[in-house]
Formats: sequence, C-alpha cells, structure tokens
Amino acid sequence: MKVSIVGGSGYTGGELLRILSIHPRVEIQHVFSRSNAGKYIHDVHPFLKGIIKMKFTSLDNLNLIKNSDVVFSCLPHGVSKEMIPKIIDYNVKIIDLSGDFRLKEASLYKRWYHFEHKNPEILAKFVYGIPEIFKEEISKAKYVSVPGCIAIASILALYPFAKRGLIKNTVYIDAKVGSSGSGKNLKISSIFSERFNSIKAYKPAMHRHSPEIETYLQLISNKKFNVLLAAHTVNIVRGILATIYLDHYEELPQIWKYYREDFGNEKFIRIIRNPRGYYKYPDPKFLLGSNFVDIGFEIDEINRKIVLMVALDNLVKGASGNAIQCMNIMFGLNEDEGLNIPPIYPI
Amino acid sequence: MKVSIVGGSGYTGGELLRILSIHPRVEIQHVFSRSNAGKYIHDVHPFLKGIIKMKFTSLDNLNLIKNSDVVFSCLPHGVSKEMIPKIIDYNVKIIDLSGDFRLKEASLYKRWYHFEHKNPEILAKFVYGIPEIFKEEISKAKYVSVPGCIAIASILALYPFAKRGLIKNTVYIDAKVGSSGSGKNLKISSIFSERFNSIKAYKPAMHRHSPEIETYLQLISNKKFNVLLAAHTVNIVRGILATIYLDHYEELPQIWKYYREDFGNEKFIRIIRNPRGYYKYPDPKFLLGSNFVDIGFEIDEINRKIVLMVALDNLVKGASGNAIQCMNIMFGLNEDEGLNIPPIYPI
Amino acid sequence: MKVSIVGGSGYTGGELLRILSIHPRVEIQHVFSRSNAGKYIHDVHPFLKGIIKMKFTSLDNLNLIKNSDVVFSCLPHGVSKEMIPKIIDYNVKIIDLSGDFRLKEASLYKRWYHFEHKNPEILAKFVYGIPEIFKEEISKAKYVSVPGCIAIASILALYPFAKRGLIKNTVYIDAKVGSSGSGKNLKISSIFSERFNSIKAYKPAMHRHSPEIETYLQLISNKKFNVLLAAHTVNIVRGILATIYLDHYEELPQIWKYYREDFGNEKFIRIIRNPRGYYKYPDPKFLLGSNFVDIGFEIDEINRKIVLMVALDNLVKGASGNAIQCMNIMFGLNEDEGLNIPPIYPI
Amino acid sequence: MKVSIVGGSGYTGGELLRILSIHPRVEIQHVFSRSNAGKYIHDVHPFLKGIIKMKFTSLDNLNLIKNSDVVFSCLPHGVSKEMIPKIIDYNVKIIDLSGDFRLKEASLYKRWYHFEHKNPEILAKFVYGIPEIFKEEISKAKYVSVPGCIAIASILALYPFAKRGLIKNTVYIDAKVGSSGSGKNLKISSIFSERFNSIKAYKPAMHRHSPEIETYLQLISNKKFNVLLAAHTVNIVRGILATIYLDHYEELPQIWKYYREDFGNEKFIRIIRNPRGYYKYPDPKFLLGSNFVDIGFEIDEINRKIVLMVALDNLVKGASGNAIQCMNIMFGLNEDEGLNIPPIYPI
Repeated sequence: MKVSIVGGSGYTGGELLRILSIHPRVEIQHVFSRSNAGKYIHDVHPFLKGIIKMKFTSLDNLNLIKNSDVVFSCLPHGVSKEMIPKIIDYNVKIIDLSGDFRLKEASLYKRWYHFEHKNPEILAKFVYGIPEIFKEEISKAKYVSVPGCIAIASILALYPFAKRGLIKNTVYIDAKVGSSGSGKNLKISSIFSERFNSIKAYKPAMHRHSPEIETYLQLISNKKFNVLLAAHTVNIVRGILATIYLDHYEELPQIWKYYREDFGNEKFIRIIRNPRGYYKYPDPKFLLGSNFVDIGFEIDEINRKIVLMVALDNLVKGASGNAIQCMNIMFGLNEDEGLNIPPIYPI
Repeated sequence: MKVSIVGGSGYTGGELLRILSIHPRVEIQHVFSRSNAGKYIHDVHPFLKGIIKMKFTSLDNLNLIKNSDVVFSCLPHGVSKEMIPKIIDYNVKIIDLSGDFRLKEASLYKRWYHFEHKNPEILAKFVYGIPEIFKEEISKAKYVSVPGCIAIASILALYPFAKRGLIKNTVYIDAKVGSSGSGKNLKISSIFSERFNSIKAYKPAMHRHSPEIETYLQLISNKKFNVLLAAHTVNIVRGILATIYLDHYEELPQIWKYYREDFGNEKFIRIIRNPRGYYKYPDPKFLLGSNFVDIGFEIDEINRKIVLMVALDNLVKGASGNAIQCMNIMFGLNEDEGLNIPPIYPI
Repeated sequence: MKVSIVGGSGYTGGELLRILSIHPRVEIQHVFSRSNAGKYIHDVHPFLKGIIKMKFTSLDNLNLIKNSDVVFSCLPHGVSKEMIPKIIDYNVKIIDLSGDFRLKEASLYKRWYHFEHKNPEILAKFVYGIPEIFKEEISKAKYVSVPGCIAIASILALYPFAKRGLIKNTVYIDAKVGSSGSGKNLKISSIFSERFNSIKAYKPAMHRHSPEIETYLQLISNKKFNVLLAAHTVNIVRGILATIYLDHYEELPQIWKYYREDFGNEKFIRIIRNPRGYYKYPDPKFLLGSNFVDIGFEIDEINRKIVLMVALDNLVKGASGNAIQCMNIMFGLNEDEGLNIPPIYPI
Repeated sequence: MKVSIVGGSGYTGGELLRILSIHPRVEIQHVFSRSNAGKYIHDVHPFLKGIIKMKFTSLDNLNLIKNSDVVFSCLPHGVSKEMIPKIIDYNVKIIDLSGDFRLKEASLYKRWYHFEHKNPEILAKFVYGIPEIFKEEISKAKYVSVPGCIAIASILALYPFAKRGLIKNTVYIDAKVGSSGSGKNLKISSIFSERFNSIKAYKPAMHRHSPEIETYLQLISNKKFNVLLAAHTVNIVRGILATIYLDHYEELPQIWKYYREDFGNEKFIRIIRNPRGYYKYPDPKFLLGSNFVDIGFEIDEINRKIVLMVALDNLVKGASGNAIQCMNIMFGLNEDEGLNIPPIYPI
C-alpha cells in the first residue's frame, strides 16, 4: 500500500513515520513539507536516522500524490481545511489528523475554531475515526477525521454509559496532558525552564475538544447533556490521563459488565481496576509508545457517583496510531497490523 | 520563644526546621525522634548542614519539653493521637500536623482512619488551623490542628461560595499532588524508575481529606452538601494544584468581588486570573518554597459552571508554613513573622 | 526458536519480553522466577497486559528448560554464578546478562565483586557479547556474557583508538546513567522525592565496569593503560551518556575516517557530529527504545585532546537488545531480526 | 543601602530581587529594563507578586542611577560592555554578572567572545568576585565582575591544589548544568518537549568559562596548565554539578586537611564526603535556593588520581547570591547578611 504524508515535520508526522516504517504492508511514498522541502527527513526527525533515508518533498509537487493509495494530513488546524480540497482532487483516500473535519456542523467552527468553514459538503463526507465505535463506517469511508487526543479518551471511557442512556447531567472531564500534545510550539512559556515542574490548567473551560465529545456522545446516546472539559499540563511530554466525574451510580460488577460487553474483544482497550495490585488505575506510564487505551473506574459510595479514568499515548492512540488503525480498517487489513507495538517501560 | 518538635525526621519536620531556623523570634529547643535519637539533625536532613548543629533528642526525654512554649507534632496519623495526650501533660501549646485531631466527630475516625478515637474530649479542644478563616479562634487556642494540604487549598478556594450559601450540589475536587505529600514512603511503587513520568489517581474517591473539607465548609455554609475528592500524583515532588468544579454560576466581576472582599487583606493569598498574561491561572511552580496560596477561577458560559483552581506548596502553606503562621497568631506575633520567604523561581 | 528466561521479574527481564514478544522467529517458552512463580507476567510487568498471557514458572521446574534452544539469565550479580552451572547441565545455549561471567580472570572477581569465582573453567567458555567487535566469536559461542551498559558504550566509542594503538594514558569516562540501570532497588535514597532533580556521582571511582573496559580494550589494543570511570545519576529513568576524555589528538577528518572504516556497515551504530545542526552530539533522548548506539566526538585544539560522547538505551543496547542481537548471531539469523524498532520520540 | 539593577528581566535579575527583597540592609531603588519599562515587575516575574510592587524603569532614565550606592548589571554578554562605561559615569559601585569584565587580557575576548574589547583600561579596574579567595581585593573594589557559574565551582574545588602548586597537567572538568544557566532562550531545542529527558554535551570543548578558570587558577598557582571543560545539560532547571579529574594523587586525610585549612571558616562552603552515609557526595539537590557550595572528593587508588565533585545553585552562588555576597564585602557588612537562606528540600 502506498502512503504519503502532508505536513510531516511535526510530532504527529514523526510518529506516523515511526510506526509506518515497520508496518509490513506499507510503502512510504512522499512526505510533503513546505518549510523543510529538500531536507532529509532525519534532519528534522533525527531519531529516524538509520531508519528512513528519504527527503521531504515540496508541496509544489503535490500532484505526485496521485499515485498514493492514502494520504495522511498532519497540517495544523485552519491550514488543513485549505489543503484537503486540493488533495481530494487527486482521488485518494484521506486521513486527516487536524480538527478541521471533526465536527458535523459547519456552524460550530465559527464558535470554536474562529473560522468560517467554507466546505460544509466535504465535512459531511468525513467519518469520525474511533474504530472501537464506528468500525463499520470507517471500513466504508473514503475520508476519515482522526479525533482529538482528549476527545477519543473521553468518548471511549464514557461510551458504555452514553450508549445505555445513563448520562443525564453535565460530565466533568479533568484532562492531564503531556506537552507533545501542543506540538513544537515556540514561546517563552514553552521552554524547559518555564515548563518543568509546572502543573496548571492551560484551558480550564471552553476547550475545543468539548464540542467534539458532546457531538459524538449525544449521537451515541440520543440524549442531550453538556461536557465541561478542563485541560491541564503536567510535567510530562507524552501521555494523557483524563479523570471523568459522572453524575450517575452503579455497583462495581455492573460497571465491569458494561465495559466487558462493549470492549471485551477490542485489542487496544485494557480495563484496569486493581486497587490492591501493582497497577491500580490507568496511568499513561504503562502504555507509552503503544496503541493501548487503559480505562478504569471507581465508585464513591457516599456521593453515589462514578469516577472514570482513562489513559493513552496522545501521539499513538491519541493521533498517529489511531490514524493507522483507521487506515487498516479502510483497506480491509487486520485492524492491528503494524500496531502490535508493546509499550516501553520504564521510561 | 522556645519551640520543640516531636517527630522531626520526615519532610514536614525538615520544612519546619528550614523556616524556624530563620524565624527572628524562635529558639529551637529540642527535636525529638525515636529512630534517630542521638544523630545530628543534618545526618537526616543534610540540606541543613551548616545551618542547624543540634542532635535529635530521644523520646525517652520527652519531659524536657516542659520548658518549651510550643510543640509541633509531626508524627504520622495514628501515632500522633497516642503522643498528644502525653504532651498535654506538660502544659505547653501544641500544634499538630497529623490528621488525628482535625475532625470534630470522633465517630468519623473509625470510618476514615480505621481507628477508634479514644480522646473525644481532647478533640474538642483543638482548633482547626486555617488562619484566613479562623484567626480569632486560633489566637485563643492552646491546641491547633493543621489542615491537610488538599483540604486547606480546597476550603480556601471555596470559602467565598460556602460563606454565601452558594454551594448546593456535590463539589468535585481534582487534586494533583507532589510526591512529598506522601512522605518518605518506602515501597517499590515509590522508587524513581516507577514514579517518574507517572500520572495517576492514587485515591480517586473516598479520600481522607474529604470529611475534613465537608466538615468545615458545612460549618461555614450552614448547608449540607458533599465533596468528591480525587487525588492524583503528577511527576513533581513539591506543590499541589486542585481544580474544583462548582455547580454554580456567576459572572466574572462578581467572583472577583467575592475574593477581594474575603481575602483582599490576606498576606498569603494571591488571586491569579490573567488569561492573556504570562501567569494565567494558579500553578505551584510560581510559589514553591513560600507560604502563598494562589487562587484563580474561570467560568464556562455554556455549561454555566465555575471552575476554581488553587495552588500551594504542600510542605509550606499545606503543612509547616501554615503551622508557623498559626504559632505566630497563637503568640500574638505578626502573622507573617519569619514567613516572608519569596518563592524560588525557576526550579 | 524456543527461548526461556531465568529471573524475569526485573527491568532487563521485562525488556527482553517487550522485544521478544514481537521477534518473528521466537517462541517464549518459560519465564522462571523465584519470587513470582505462579503469578501472571502482566501482574509484575503490567505494561505487557494484552501482549503476554503466560505465568511465571517456578525455579523448582528448571528442568523444563531442556526443551529450550537458548536461555537468557537476568539474575543479579552473585546469584547468576550459582545458577549458570545448573543451566549448563541442560545443554542449552546461554546468554547471561549479569557481571558474573564478563571478566576473563577469576582473580578479578574477588577485588571487584567481593566473591571467589568457583568456576574459572566456565569463565573461559563465555564470549564477551559485543557484536560489532566480536561477531565471529559470538557466532560460534555456546555461552555469551552480555557487557555492562557503561562498558559497551565506552568500548565501542574507544574501539577505533584502541585498535590503532592510540590510547596510551589514563582514559577518563564520565558516565551519566538513568535510574533503571540500578534495577528495582528499594531504599530511601531511591524514592522519587529523594531522587528527582538529583545530579550526583554515585560511584566516582573504582566502578565495577572499569576492569571490564580495561580488559577488552587492552585485548583489542595490545597495550596497557588505565580507565577511570565515574558514574553519575542524572534525573532520567532510561538512557546513558558517557563523555570520554582521551589524551590523544587528531584532526576531525581523521576521526571521521576511523569511525567510518570501523563501523560504517554496522546497523546499530550511528555517528553523530553536527555542531550547527539540530542533533549536534549524542543524546539518549534520540534513541530511547531502540538498539542504536550514537557516537560523536569533538576536538579541543588548544589542549590537543579528543572528547568522545556515546549514548545508548541502557535496557536495549546496554542489556536486553544487545543480548537478542547476540542470540540472532549465535543462531545464524540476521543480526537485526526483531530489533528494527525505531526510537520513540519525543518522550 | 540603595541598590539598582540594570537588565532585571532575566533569571539572574529575578534571583537578585528574590534575595534582595529580604536583605535587611537593602532598599531596591530602580530596576531598569529596555523591553519591559513601565510594566510591573511581577508581570515579568510573577513569583514576586505580593512581594515587590515596583515597576521597571526605562533605560532612558538611567541618570536616576546616580542616587544608588551600587548597581548590579545583569545584561547579556556583549551588551554589558557597552553599558558599563555609561554607568561608570554616575560614580556608583558596580557589580557585573556578565562575562564582559571577567578576563584580564582584552585579547582573550576576541578569541572567546568574538568581539573586540574596547575598554581594556576598564577591564583592569574590575576585581574577580570569588569572596572565598579574593576577599581582600573585593573589599577595596569599586567594580566587581561576578564569575561564571561553572567557573566559580571549578576554581573553588581546585583552589587548594592550585595554591599548593599541585596541578601540573590538563584538568578535565565535566560540568552538568541546569537549563536556567542559559537564560530565557527562545529556540526549538529549548522547548520542554525537546529538552525533557535530554542528556547531552552542549559544549564539549572550547567553553568560554575555561579561559576564566585557567586565568585565575594560574594566578593562584603561579604555574601553567590547561583546562578542558565539557558542559552538559541534564534534565534539571537549577543547579550545577562539576566532576573534575585531577592528574594528581594524595591520600584522603591529606585532602581533608587541605580543604579544612583553606575553607574551614568559610560560611558558604561545605565539605561533603560520606560514602557510607545518606549524603555521600555533592549534589545540587541538597543546596537549591541557598548560597552554599558543596565540595567533595574521591581517590582512585589504582589509577592514582583524584576526582573532585562540586555542586552549587547556578543562580545563587553561581550568580546573584555570590554577587550579593560581594556587595556585602564591598560595603563592610557581614559577608552572609541576607544570605542565610536555607536550601529548600526536597524539590
């Protein structure tokens, strides 16, 4: 299968290359970049030295894309929406990692992304890429939009409750996110001296992933409810933990049952709840580098609430790994082909 | 003023010594320790080498305490409740940093600390040490119980809302805590290789600080409501950030007004809300080593909720610094005497 | 190929399992453990949940080993030397990761490991496992001893100079090592609160890896000289950087030539020297999780000395990855089979 | 005493303010800044909120400096040499923290700093500010140049050997430095995602601090020898550890004697050597925030060499704290006035 990447200089681009370089069915054809055209890929991603010997291709030669079977777009929000229509002209399958094609209603883009979405008809053609929920749709899709990292974590953890109509009131999601989630962002507050040891909410309300979470959970649930998402940065580079407060109560065996029913056969979902054991509740440390999502839960008997915890690697299941899982499904491969990468531990 | 410490080998003991060593009105008299009696203090706390030249005193000589004006007890939960009655016999003022005298109802100890509190009458003599709220009571107290680090953070942030009766439903507190909060705890899951990069809930529900928070907020509020506290560990040693989700809504100017009214004259409380500035919302990084509590807030207009954020140094305002602030008040000194230590930044 | 592991509970055991689980030619047969016999492997190595479903086998059933083609021993120093003779009885190939069979002279063990080596005749049968230097010997070996992590880094970096007889005076090696190099070590100074932010020499002289380095470099060089190794811990879990000070001088093109000649065809050695580029000199960050060794150099024109820098992942090329590379060679497979794992970046 | 600061926006400026704000004899008069004139100091240094209420003064009003007793210059290298002559006109004492007045020979600036020093006569008026060695000269000085952080660490550790003429061959200095040493440096390789977990030599030879070290050690020693300094970055923000390899040998008691003789009465130097204890060798972790220098040593009996280790806080004894110590001496105060700040531990 011939694969190209548009916008391959960032972290999600590097992560796609890391995984695709050992995918048994993939040939990497072109890695396009505006700013790095002509440079060796390993000059921008030195960790790939000795692994990928290609150079970046200029976007001036975008027409070379026509021989690819699938294109991953790793462009930033706002840039992707301009590029995707051009790629569509070459009649290839597209997997977009930006936020530009995640929401169903064009009107939401004005509010949350501060731009007018000029291609609502394209929007309708994109399938939202959560394989564990929308496998069927993805398998038939020509265009897939990969969820935001906090969104996929939250939606998967809440899925059994949404599906059964058990979410009624506001869901609180407290997300703790590694710095790689915000890309190669050059500003004083991003430098090591400023960010090391820093624990803070960078977006304590009105986060862009919340309409995404609401849209798909309401779709699954067929109910209306709100999501309040507060995103925090926490002294790590890679990984997410989201703690979710649910205004609903069930006994533990029932919750176990839901997750087993819904995810028991999913290769990339692990249910983690072992308060007396070594790995008690989800922690990204135990899955870094892999495509796993670890979901756990606890009940508060006094308050009669449920606390969900969900961890994933924001660059793998939260972006590039999940994108490749979608690709596998779109092309009829085994869903886990090239993705059976064990986590690296300890690190 | 003559000061002694019982149980001075741990982190809160070390922190008391750090601050007291430069307190202009304090003479450190005895530092008692069972396991380290006879050793130099700087053998256990090497950072104090060149600063404190004393040795630890054996608990066998507890009677030496009678010449002290005040005793800080830094013993662990469960041990303190056995020792405090003995210290009381020497007729000194006591400031206890454990959880053993924080709750008002003896019955709560069985549920939350798994022991029978045999001295309910002593319990009644202890004042809960939040100077910004109970200054009057502390100034008259002979015995003060210092709040838990998450508890003091949460109660201070919620105080304006509790006081005005605005808390009606369950309050969700998502606490992110540095490892020093759990002391010198020797187990495999505490070693650096296991804990570095780890982001996890270590107590996602039913945390011991929640009855403390409920007790005093209800007292302030004169209303009943519940608190759900989830405590997380987040790749730092020192510092706490708590994010609090409040099922209540007000416009920003009103919230500013509450905090200014209630805390405008408090030396150790800083209100931090500057979404376009450099220091946007509370972050322990900006106050490490100091007695500051930084409180901030954001509103979610869609969900009509308030998100509070509160940061402090768990060993200073969350323990030893706050204990010394209480001491100053108990002895009629300026509240900030010896505590005007600027934060250390960056670190 | 049937593979068993003895002593699989530690970090090098976990790392062997991580890599072997995706090695296309390997079937993991037994993972022996004294303390964890009967437990699921993923109870001890939770990151392997969903990947390895086996249980630990008791050492009482060591005879099961007879059906394996090769056994990896991950036992601690001192324990391995007792177990290896027993494994030898089962007539399998052995790859030992401890220090017990690294040195050629039994007498050295008394000085450096504080025990009497009772099996000098077994010592002679072990080949020292640096594939890039002793490939031929490894391919014929029945027993291989895997080098220490600092030793393999230092020997590889110094190899071109040793081989050409250019090392004459004491070589200074300043090693900066991640905490995983010392295993799951339970003591107060290992806990997160104590070790985070700590930068210190833990063995500033007389390190056990120095006789290993001397022995093999002198063998290669046929000259006598000493090695002074100072080992430091530096606020990371995984990875090593060694800076080596060489009392010798050559111009840059000559040094490039040496490394290209000696390692130009080695798949796992990358030469890194690009002072104006992005990846200037070796840094373990760019190779974590992979079997790469990154070697770089700089000259000091004033002092007329050479500074070498060498980085590797202590658990991969510094232990388990290198052990698997040796296995591949011992069994006539491609040296890199199962080892073409790209580094994970950023992390 | 009236104090002003020129260039107060960076980390050394912030650190001066932290310490001066609690110095009992100091009144902070003006903090000049080009880029931040008119802003509140706490907008640039938010950790000082609640402590310093002043605004930055524009450099256009530099003449206000005339009422100050002493001026600290925290300008970058190259900028300071242009500003200092202007400040000299106002007839105030000057303490410069840049490298522009550290070297004695103007010619060295061309080689090491790539600029022509136009004021060699000013150069001659500056005293090199190591109080423990040049106390007499500092007490009489009008102008003091504060050493580089690696330089002061290295010179102090080597002083007893230099003074006794025991340094004959090249001294190797392997410095491990926190990120704050390079200031608020905005480039991609400085961002958290890139620098976290990174361990690398950023200047493995020909470092600017080496001529400084050579100049003053040769002055002390009256011998010629070279210094090879390799500077590394190691996953921390604050603190330095330098490991120094000395081609000289003495027994331990003799080394102890040297240090006791030379530094036994120095308040800010602690000799740390306790291989069986808790704090074995110097580690910046045990002195962060304080003005201490911790010096330790080990001997290698086989190689007959000495390994020195020296740790300090690069922003305190490596910059601003040491500058204030010089100020105290210049004004006849107790050397430690305002500097008896205990380290913060753990952090």
